Formats: sequence, structure tokens, C-alpha cells
Amino acid sequence: MLEELRKQVFEANLELNRKGLVVYTWGNVSGIDRGRGLVVIKPSGVDYETMTADQMVVVTLDGETVEGSLRPSSDLPTHLELYRRFPNIGGVAHTHSPFATAWAQAGMEIPCLGTTHADHFYGPVPCARALTQDEVEHEYEHNTGKVIVEAFAGLDPDAVPAVLVSQHGPFTWGKDPMDAVKNSVVLEEVAKMASVALGINPYAKPVPQYLLDKHYFRKHGKNAYYGQV
Amino acid sequence: MLEELRKQVFEANLELNRKGLVVYTWGNVSGIDRGRGLVVIKPSGVDYETMTADQMVVVTLDGETVEGSLRPSSDLPTHLELYRRFPNIGGVAHTHSPFATAWAQAGMEIPCLGTTHADHFYGPVPCARALTQDEVEHEYEHNTGKVIVEAFAGLDPDAVPAVLVSQHGPFTWGKDPMDAVKNSVVLEEVAKMASVALGINPYAKPVPQYLLDKHYFRKHGKNAYYGQV
Amino acid sequence: MLEELRKQVFEANLELNRKGLVVYTWGNVSGIDRGRGLVVIKPSGVDYETMTADQMVVVTLDGETVEGSLRPSSDLPTHLELYRRFPNIGGVAHTHSPFATAWAQAGMEIPCLGTTHADHFYGPVPCARALTQDEVEHEYEHNTGKVIVEAFAGLDPDAVPAVLVSQHGPFTWGKDPMDAVKNSVVLEEVAKMASVALGINPYAKPVPQYLLDKHYFRKHGKNAYYGQV
Amino acid sequence: MLEELRKQVFEANLELNRKGLVVYTWGNVSGIDRGRGLVVIKPSGVDYETMTADQMVVVTLDGETVEGSLRPSSDLPTHLELYRRFPNIGGVAHTHSPFATAWAQAGMEIPCLGTTHADHFYGPVPCARALTQDEVEHEYEHNTGKVIVEAFAGLDPDAVPAVLVSQHGPFTWGKDPMDAVKNSVVLEEVAKMASVALGINPYAKPVPQYLLDKHYFRKHGKNAYYGQV
Repeated sequence: MLEELRKQVFEANLELNRKGLVVYTWGNVSGIDRGRGLVVIKPSGVDYETMTADQMVVVTLDGETVEGSLRPSSDLPTHLELYRRFPNIGGVAHTHSPFATAWAQAGMEIPCLGTTHADHFYGPVPCARALTQDEVEHEYEHNTGKVIVEAFAGLDPDAVPAVLVSQHGPFTWGKDPMDAVKNSVVLEEVAKMASVALGINPYAKPVPQYLLDKHYFRKHGKNAYYGQV
Repeated sequence: MLEELRKQVFEANLELNRKGLVVYTWGNVSGIDRGRGLVVIKPSGVDYETMTADQMVVVTLDGETVEGSLRPSSDLPTHLELYRRFPNIGGVAHTHSPFATAWAQAGMEIPCLGTTHADHFYGPVPCARALTQDEVEHEYEHNTGKVIVEAFAGLDPDAVPAVLVSQHGPFTWGKDPMDAVKNSVVLEEVAKMASVALGINPYAKPVPQYLLDKHYFRKHGKNAYYGQV
Repeated sequence: MLEELRKQVFEANLELNRKGLVVYTWGNVSGIDRGRGLVVIKPSGVDYETMTADQMVVVTLDGETVEGSLRPSSDLPTHLELYRRFPNIGGVAHTHSPFATAWAQAGMEIPCLGTTHADHFYGPVPCARALTQDEVEHEYEHNTGKVIVEAFAGLDPDAVPAVLVSQHGPFTWGKDPMDAVKNSVVLEEVAKMASVALGINPYAKPVPQYLLDKHYFRKHGKNAYYGQV
Repeated sequence: MLEELRKQVFEANLELNRKGLVVYTWGNVSGIDRGRGLVVIKPSGVDYETMTADQMVVVTLDGETVEGSLRPSSDLPTHLELYRRFPNIGGVAHTHSPFATAWAQAGMEIPCLGTTHADHFYGPVPCARALTQDEVEHEYEHNTGKVIVEAFAGLDPDAVPAVLVSQHGPFTWGKDPMDAVKNSVVLEEVAKMASVALGINPYAKPVPQYLLDKHYFRKHGKNAYYGQV
């Protein structure tokens, strides 16, 4: 079932590897069929080299496996929480890419220091608060999803499709699995640029609102004029 | 029309990608036929993997499309302003390469800290002033060209074929499209070296004028003695 | 003799090279046959490109060559000390990978700043004390092993399968030679992330004990739920 | 003439490119036939992709071209001065590799912070003094050689086969052209490690003399025991 989505999720996971964002079996991508309420996700701890589309696991939004003989990614409950609370997203990606992860380890949001960032993320990429001991010890992955959602109170997850989980790493999302991966790639590049920029000038300032508006809406929304119609 | 220039522009855009300066569809290169007053530029938001020479767009210096079914790069008005005001240049390139972009995000010119820089750029690579809100909101890309030109008041754009746009990224130019790309590659290398050098020694000094003269004129002008005659 | 282990050690040495952790002939990997008390190790100073499985050297735990016409890696006595004192390990790897080596040159343990680290190393990666002049001048490689063991007083080498030797570089180990190499790869990634994170935020804090426990035991021990059973 | 040396110099120049140390036509390698007093060097400004062994230029120690239709590298007089003053060397390499060049731009010697450095360079890699205006304006490349030689007053160029030219970049040498390139590769790695180490710990100390002795003489001289006899 869900052959097309299964293939998309498989390809998006391979793309994570091709783009150099993952080491060994780190990272995972999922996609959702909103009509059926089913999610397809990478199996846990499987090598990218030997992985096949058949091994993708199909689960319900409650995390019950519907199809697949392998155990789903251990981060599944985080993905599910994001699908439940961010109604427009079609794919979720998680990596430990080095620069984005370094910002997460620094426990700081990535400020929007330039138009590369503004082209893709409408404002700083937030860093979710650290989980409490209780949240870590009980339903950890579910609670990871909850603190992400909490970090987006007052923010539009469709306009800022990325987050850092404190002392952990980035999650990104998008309209489909490959779009989520693309946002992981862009986030890593933006994270690298921001760390180098602040190394050069620790007083570098975020872009003003009008420059953020200009660049973000040049690429997004009804007045966009970047790319082909 | 302009088959040769179209091919040059196409190849120069591919070279941006081959040299690892761009991610996804970021970046764009153009070239000009000064005799006809026509500019050839990459279409907006097209993948480097599937792009063809036929897709390059031919426009007038006023930005009217003369040939091509795709929309030109959204940065076209910046390129056009540079062609109008820098009469000797034959190609323009724009990237978001990480180290050059980090200097732009730092809002600082790249000082000439060594001979690698001096071999290619006759002095610091300037950082144009930030655009005002009005300049951003009206004719943004055209105004981006204007602040670049403003940054070259008193400077020779042929001797310093590169600029940083504050909080945005680099533009470079050259005698033809491939030469513009070459300057983007060199700029990225120079930007990286400068950030590492200042990390090692924050008090690193720019080269003295006589060393700048020596290296720049070893490679440029009538007394050059680098390379083959 | 020991054809299978010899092949494993050979492949693990090649993997060091494939993962980009070594330059020229730097680095070495060994494996042990606990039943026979024999160790197989890379020969000293042999190119990875021309090396063959036949060239691996078989030695006793006292360092006597049992089979092989080439001289074993000069770091052999360090490997042997680790095999003698860490009874569960099956492979040892040594590299001069740049970020892990930089931490060794800084003379500092790598703090556990995030879950990438916690997934693989149960606590900071220790930096062994510097050797005294006498320890350097007599039985240097053996003493290198001894200060590593000393650094693990009160620590479980199976839970933290990596160490930095002060002003030298990393050693890692694992259940077999390839597992030791895997820990070298992860250590380098963790070392890079930690240096970037502290560049962004010099006050970045290590993970709390409960987050360390959560991540480490999600992947290790009887309650692990990462990967396939 | 000098077919074998010509081939060695050609291959060593290609190796510079393969190891990622050069951009475009930057960098050059030469070799010397001490018996005949002839030097073979890369031609100036020729692409690595199209370069052939036939294009290598043969010159006397006074810089007169003996064979070859192309102009020799503009850095030739620096190479010649090194051959004249360092009687044991058989090859010289010059690059603008980014980390070594950054140290040169910082105007600082590379301290010996660890055994990777000590294995190859017996002490800090010196940074030659800046040239005076007069030295730059008259016989610049020759004077570059002279300040390098000056920096080695009291030092053994065979034990420290590398130098930084202030605000310029590294020169390395060795027993033959490929050995000179190898020292460029090692220098770049050592330069990178040192800059990262000092980023982590600005108070990182050079290795004590006994550790420098141990590592350097483990690999060099009559008591060496690294590698195969």
C-alpha cells in the first residue's frame, strides 16, 4: 500500500545521505498521506547502502504499524506529533548535520543574519526549550514533539519549517518528504554561514523586517516572483 | 540568436555548480553582447541538473525579454545595472557561497590580508551599504545594483571585480561569464582564508601598498609577467 | 592463520581511509582473537592503496610476531596494553583525524554537549594526562597505553570507547575492528560539533545526566529500542 | 633531457591538484638534478587539466631556460635560491592551501602543538619576516627566497622542510618533488589542526622537547623505527 508515498520517503532518505547530512544510520525522513491518516517512515538503524523502499514502515497517526516487518525509526513519535499539530505539512526530516546540531548544542536560535536565511525561513529558526527530567524519562520522543510545537506558539510552522531541539539537533518539515529534506540542506548551510559570520563579527545584526519580508515573499506566497510560474 | 554567448552563459552557470559554490538553484550568471546591447542570463529557479543552453533568456539592457520562454533570474535588474555602469565587464555572477556570504552577513569588507587576495583583487573587497526600507520595497534588485555602483565611487571595478551586498552575498564580474565565475571561486577562497587568519590573529594587518602593487601588477596590466604571453 | 580476523583488520584499515580520517599512512587498526591470545595489526608505514590482507601482522599479547614479514605498526604496544586491560574489546583504532586531534592538542576532554555524543559515548571523552619525560623516553608506546588505562580509572571503557592522548590524538576501540573504526568516525564528528558549538556559545553546557542516560540506553543495553532486534 | 626528473615534476604538480591544495593554476613544484645543476619546474599559469610533462621547463641554477618553450613559474627565483642554499633538497613546492596560507596571513609561525606536527617537522614552522618595500620592488621572488633562508639561520631545513612567507603562503621542500608535495599536504593538515586547537583552547602549549624528540626521531634518522626498513 501507499507505493508512491513509500517511494517518496525512500528517495528522500537516500537524498539525506547523498547530500552528506548523515553519518552511518543517523537521520530519518517520513511522509504522510493525509487522506488515509497514514505515515510512512524509515526503519530504525538500517544502513542507507542496503535499504530498500520495501523496508519503509507504514504506521497510523497513533504509531501502530500497519505494514512493514521492521521497527520504525525511534523518533517516530516526534514525527507524529508534528503531523498532528502542523496540519499542512506532508513530510518531516531529522538529521544530526554538524552545523545545525552545533547551534542546538549551543542552545541558541539561529538568527536571520542574511537573505539566504530569509529566502527560506521567515525569521529566526527557534531552539525549543530543554525537556525536563520527567519529559525525558517518560514518552521522550513524544515530548520532543511537544516542546517543538510549544516553540511555535505564535509562529507559523509553514513559514519557518525548521527547529532546533536543545542539545539534540534539527527537525525540518515541508510539503512532502523531499521538501523536508531540502529544508534540512538549507538549514545546514544557513547554520554554517551564521556561525562563520558571528566568528568574523560577533555584533552582526539580524536583517530588518523589511528585508526579511522582501526576500521571503519574493519566493513564497501569491506575490512571489522567483522561479517559474 | 547569440548562440555562442548563450552557450558561454550556460557553461558558466554549470561551472558555478561544479565548483561547489551553489546549493540547489541558488546563484546565477549572465553575459553581455555589448555590440547588440543584449544580455543572456540563467532562468529563475531552474535546476542545474536539467538546465539546457536553450533555456537561457535573452533580454535587452532595459530588461525586456527578446528570446526565451522562461522568466529570467529575479536578480536580473542587478546584473543590468552593473552592465550599464561598468562599461568594460562582459559577465556577472552571483552566488551565496558560504564564506563570502558570511562576510556579507558580518557587514564587513574583506581586507586584503595576503597575496592570494592581491593577485586577484586590487584592494579590499568592499561591502556595499545596507539598502534603506524604501530601496528594499521599491525596485529592490535595481537598487541592489545601485548601492554596488555607489560602493565603487572612486574604485575601479575592473581592478576589484567583486563586491559584497550587506546581509546578502557576493556579486562578481569579469571580462566574460566564465571569468566572472572564476572571480566568484577566488573570492570564496579569499573569504575563507581571511576568516581563518583573523581567527588565528585578530590583529592581522592588510598587506602594504607596495606588496599589493607587486602582486596585482605581476598578474595584470602591461608589465604582467605571470602566465604565458 | 586467523584468515577471518586478518581480513577484518585489513577491511577496517581501508575503511579508515575511505571515511577520510587518515592522510598518507597515518592511522592503524588492530583486532584480537581472545581465544588464542593473538592480535592482528596493520604493518607500519604501508600505503593504503597498495596494502593487502596478507601484509597484516600477527603478534602475541607480548608483541612477538607470529606471522608476517613486515614490521607491525609502531603503536602496537599501545594497542596491546588496551587489549590486556580492557577485557571486552575486540578491536582498536588510532587516527590523527583533525578535530579529535585538535581537542587532544588543546589538552581537553570533549564534553558531552548533545545527544549525538550521548548516543555513542556515555559521558565526556577523557583526555589522558601528558606523559612524563621518563615515560616518553622509555617504552613510550607502552606508557601511552598505560596513561589511557589510568584515565579510565572509575570509568567503563565499554561505555566510553574512546580517549584522547594529550598533544597526540585519539584512540578508539569496540567489539571488533570495524566497530573501533566506527567509533573513530563518530568521535571525529562529535569533536567537530563540540568545537563549533563552543565557538557559537562558549558557555554551552554538557547534557544533564538524565538526557545522557536516555540517549545512551536508548541504543545500548537490555532496554535499548533503537535499531532492529 | 632529464626525462625522469621531468616526469617526476609533472606528476608532483598533478598531485598538488589531486590532493586539493590548489585552485585553478595556483601552486608550483620543481625538482633538481644536482649533478647537472639543472632545475625542472612547472610553466607559469598553465591549467592542471591540460598540462603535459613536455611542458615542464628546464632551467639552470641561474634561471636561464635550457629547454622548454613556455615561461617558467614566476616563483622560479624563490625555488632557485632554496636549491642554492639548502644543499640537500631535491624538490620544492609552493601552494596557497587555505589553512597554511591563513597562518602566513596571520604572520605567525605554526607552533608544534602535537605529535602530528612533531612526526614531520622538528619544531615550529617558521614565518619569514615581511619583505621591505625595496625587497618587494626589486627582485621580489629572489628576495622571497632570501628571507626564507634568513628564517632558517640556526635551523636545519632538512628537519623543518616548510616555511610560511608572511602575508603570502607556504613553501615546502623535500628529497624529491613528490616529497616536497607530501610536506605541503602535511603542513596544511597541521595548520588546520593548530587553528582548531587554539580555537578550543587559546592557551594550548607546544609539545615539550622530549616529546618532539621522541616523535621526530621515531620517524627520522638512524634510530627511526616507524615504517619498514
